[in-house]
Amino acid sequence: MKFCSNCGKAVIREVPPGDNRPRFVCRNCATIHYQNPRVIVGVLPTYEDSVLLCERDIQPRKGFWTLPAGFLENDESTLEGAIRECQEESMASVVDAKLYAIYDIPHIRQVYIFYRARMDNPYFSKTMESSDVRLFVEEDIPWEQLAFPVVAETLTAFFNDRKRGHYDVRYMQINKGWHRPDTVQSGN
Amino acid sequence: MKFCSNCGKAVIREVPPGDNRPRFVCRNCATIHYQNPRVIVGVLPTYEDSVLLCERDIQPRKGFWTLPAGFLENDESTLEGAIRECQEESMASVVDAKLYAIYDIPHIRQVYIFYRARMDNPYFSKTMESSDVRLFVEEDIPWEQLAFPVVAETLTAFFNDRKRGHYDVRYMQINKGWHRPDTVQSGN
Repeated sequence: MKFCSNCGKAVIREVPPGDNRPRFVCRNCATIHYQNPRVIVGVLPTYEDSVLLCERDIQPRKGFWTLPAGFLENDESTLEGAIRECQEESMASVVDAKLYAIYDIPHIRQVYIFYRARMDNPYFSKTMESSDVRLFVEEDIPWEQLAFPVVAETLTAFFNDRKRGHYDVRYMQINKGWHRPDTVQSGN
Repeated sequence: MKFCSNCGKAVIREVPPGDNRPRFVCRNCATIHYQNPRVIVGVLPTYEDSVLLCERDIQPRKGFWTLPAGFLENDESTLEGAIRECQEESMASVVDAKLYAIYDIPHIRQVYIFYRARMDNPYFSKTMESSDVRLFVEEDIPWEQLAFPVVAETLTAFFNDRKRGHYDVRYMQINKGWHRPDTVQSGN
């Protein structure tokens, strides 16, 4: 941030009175510009035994597989946003969505919120954002070609939970240097 | 937003190519300014049978009672932010924090994330933001003087969960016209 979005004058970075961390401050109109992490919402869509994944046709991680997810927009709930992203990226519509996982990724200033939800029909397709969309059974998940740590963590949790027949809401902080969970390596 | 925070020229509001909703766009430097909901993180602090509440000394809802909570900052996790807010508003330090409730409040563009956590000592005090800080047993909760719907919902859920001896992670969307849950009215 270089200029005040309210008056157009240059901002400076300083700790405002009564605050304890630096903010972008406009000395002209006295606006303090707070910057905060963003929320990404997504779905783990299931159909019978399978999970729906999207091959990203956009950067970052173009060509890698992901669960449908994207930035939460103003004026929508996280649930509405997750369902919208699923529709936009895969054309799949889902029902019975349940909160499933929260991920903090502080070093990139993101909070992920995933729902698991059921596709009530097997219709989906490629989209502007996805060069391919497919249903995968557990054995066929492309673990080495997943786009993001949150995708690997959510899929791992889901297959473990499905085996034991009980789904807990998961919370995890993901830091730099993350490694893929052991339980899914090479399908052993 | 009136001016581009990158170059200082006036922005316009339009739907960018390939997008489907209006954004603030700078025609001078081609920056698209996305705006997203903000995350508020908080704690339900417990000590023995009691819950810690803070009387707000700042607007909005000055003079009403709240659970310690505030905006998530960049470069911290939701858990770190919740513990920081608890410290800033009540001087209480908490341990054993567990994810407890997620609230969507789309009409004010906020997502709340609450942890429940244990105070390992009974030390707390008034702060810059809290004109009073007190431990309350369930019977003494000031239900009519709570600051926000999320506070009433979280306390109601907590006392219900404590009675049944099992704590689920809660998800709820809170809309305009919210009413206080029946189960806590007048302590009946």
